[in-house]
Amino acid sequence: MERLPGFRDFYPEPLPSKEAWSADLRQRLFDSWRTTARRHGFREYDGPPLEPLELFTVKSGDEIVGQLYNFVDKGDREISLRPEMTPTLARMAAAAERQYKKPLKWFAIPQLFRYERQQKGRLREHFQFNADIIGEADPAADAELIALLINTLRELGLTDADFVVRLSSRLAWQEFYGERATEPGRSYEFFQIVDKLEREAPERSDAALQALGFSLEAVREFIAAARPTDDLKRILDDLGARGLGAFVKVDYLVIRGLAYYTGPVFEAFDRKGEFRAIAGGGRYDNLLKLISGGRVDLPALGFGMGDVVLTELLKARGLVPAVVAGIDVCVLVEDEGLRLASLRVVQQLRETGCAVDYSLTSMKPDKQFKRAVELGAAHTVRLVRGEDGAISARVKNLRTREEQVLSPDAVVPALSVRHPA
Amino acid sequence: MERLPGFRDFYPEPLPSKEAWSADLRQRLFDSWRTTARRHGFREYDGPPLEPLELFTVKSGDEIVGQLYNFVDKGDREISLRPEMTPTLARMAAAAERQYKKPLKWFAIPQLFRYERQQKGRLREHFQFNADIIGEADPAADAELIALLINTLRELGLTDADFVVRLSSRLAWQEFYGERATEPGRSYEFFQIVDKLEREAPERSDAALQALGFSLEAVREFIAAARPTDDLKRILDDLGARGLGAFVKVDYLVIRGLAYYTGPVFEAFDRKGEFRAIAGGGRYDNLLKLISGGRVDLPALGFGMGDVVLTELLKARGLVPAVVAGIDVCVLVEDEGLRLASLRVVQQLRETGCAVDYSLTSMKPDKQFKRAVELGAAHTVRLVRGEDGAISARVKNLRTREEQVLSPDAVVPALSVRHPA
Repeated sequence: MERLPGFRDFYPEPLPSKEAWSADLRQRLFDSWRTTARRHGFREYDGPPLEPLELFTVKSGDEIVGQLYNFVDKGDREISLRPEMTPTLARMAAAAERQYKKPLKWFAIPQLFRYERQQKGRLREHFQFNADIIGEADPAADAELIALLINTLRELGLTDADFVVRLSSRLAWQEFYGERATEPGRSYEFFQIVDKLEREAPERSDAALQALGFSLEAVREFIAAARPTDDLKRILDDLGARGLGAFVKVDYLVIRGLAYYTGPVFEAFDRKGEFRAIAGGGRYDNLLKLISGGRVDLPALGFGMGDVVLTELLKARGLVPAVVAGIDVCVLVEDEGLRLASLRVVQQLRETGCAVDYSLTSMKPDKQFKRAVELGAAHTVRLVRGEDGAISARVKNLRTREEQVLSPDAVVPALSVRHPA
Repeated sequence: MERLPGFRDFYPEPLPSKEAWSADLRQRLFDSWRTTARRHGFREYDGPPLEPLELFTVKSGDEIVGQLYNFVDKGDREISLRPEMTPTLARMAAAAERQYKKPLKWFAIPQLFRYERQQKGRLREHFQFNADIIGEADPAADAELIALLINTLRELGLTDADFVVRLSSRLAWQEFYGERATEPGRSYEFFQIVDKLEREAPERSDAALQALGFSLEAVREFIAAARPTDDLKRILDDLGARGLGAFVKVDYLVIRGLAYYTGPVFEAFDRKGEFRAIAGGGRYDNLLKLISGGRVDLPALGFGMGDVVLTELLKARGLVPAVVAGIDVCVLVEDEGLRLASLRVVQQLRETGCAVDYSLTSMKPDKQFKRAVELGAAHTVRLVRGEDGAISARVKNLRTREEQVLSPDAVVPALSVRHPA
């Protein structure tokens, strides 16, 4: 029986095949995201992987349904697996914001889903690090959020030679559009054309822009000038003061596809341009009002960083360290008559915080030892009965290959990594 | 807009309402599960939350569909959200087992789903710690698995006064049934009646048993005798050697509802009998063969432990510690002219591993200080410009209330929790 197309299985390392995904690497990524977010004062939240379909269409319109993993449940509800986290966050924050001091600085690591028919071989799920700030209109919040994005990638070993955050502004584009537009109501259409400039043939972009009364040349001049708005200047000064200036540049080619952004927007890319965006986000000051039906009106901003592109980038830059099983001690059972006594040592070591493994059944001593080496154990312990019937413990350091002879009760003090609770 | 019935939102503490679920407590549970599993030599894996419906019906028959969160996807596939992890594990292990040394000791922390129409107010999802051993038929594997279950609960602060693992055997029941049955093919029906003995009225159980040629009295005698099979004796000896004998007892009232168990089965209960089972599992030696269509035939066993009952139990026993925001240092910006210099300190402290927060915008000094106390910060740092224009840093220890005056560059060495990488 096969898994569904577009979904991943995550295996323990060493991986069974080159195509397999690593559960160890995934957990390392999640740990790093979590640690960095907490260090920046962000708090974790989560919502259901399923939401009413309406939560997503109210924000993005019915055309989004074509990309959703949606269905009708047994209670005849229109449901969708979440394609992004922001609507869930807006729903949760709108319901509970009165109980929290503003601004909220929240993060989550949801699995997200989409269903596009034509995309063969494309993943239908990924995990995404989401961080958002709710309740602060000042650009200081945008800078703090972007600092988190930069520091998250740095924590994984990436430097300013590896990636850059391209910073733009929906406001700057709105102004540009407003000053020149012949049809003021079609701004979103215009943004969509700009969003595709890097991928689209110039003639097609030019034709599409002409239809709205613009020329590709004028748009390119605006992008080339890259004149930061006052908000962007504040963000750049703030990040510069943190010593993060080299990680960010103004780039109006970035505009973000989603309809709901209202202010600064940004995307992180690898400097070599080999991959899709590593992360992206921006300000969405009107979304909470929309989701809450006008009840709650708070400015907000956030970003998302997916696990797939990031994993590809880390691999390409040699930043994925070899994973070992994480076993500290292997207890070797060479004398089956001492198995129960050995189990006592296993338990005691585990209680002090050691990761311990042993052979469940009788196995040749050399095979047990070889397995301990494979598992990356730092020490082996084996109980030996002497000619006088007394039991001693042989503790071997697998790095130095030195072996100590101890009484069985002295093993735990010699090897424990923490004191008993 | 509301979330779907039966699903939970997880909020950061302090919680917005008494009914709200804590994302912090959930993470603490996951961390504890993960740490304990690794300490026992178990490795993490995960599969998709969606699987082909057939993966679940092949094992449990079509009657299971009434309890599944299943639907038809846009590609006309019959799909289900996973109601349990074992079929996914069996699928993954059957596909890759040749690449791993046996036995596999694997764990996962999946979210599981079910959809029962009648159950108002009942949750339709929960998280479950799953641990399994694949490829070892010896009862030593059952003991190792049960030791993990016991140590997992102990790690959370529960003792042998709080819970017990009730150990039983499908083999013992099969033997009992086989020796007395008039209709050998109806053993699973018989097991289902035994499984409900504790909850069902005695007359109804008796009537149901009579229909299969048994009496309630004979069944009760068998349970009261509690004679361990050879396998159970081996398991008890093994756990006893580890010093875990007080956490386990033979109890044939436990039989487990699922059809696929083949040997020892067990459930962990609170001693006071206030809650549903905390965890349950057993041996399922035929499942991999079934799932793999006969390709792979490996003995296996596992258990699941849900987050909902466990959370209730921990709360009732006072074992849920108060969660603090986890902020180490609050940087107070009392002079807006020093905001950029303060941001530099924020960044430097975070780079050394400190969790740091600060006010994004201008705020009165006493309010900033109050916020630092609320966040549980150990220290505050504020930059002050002296009359001579020189900037100094005031570092306050919020426990002793002592304040040091340092040069701004001396703040990081004074407070850092780790050295820069």
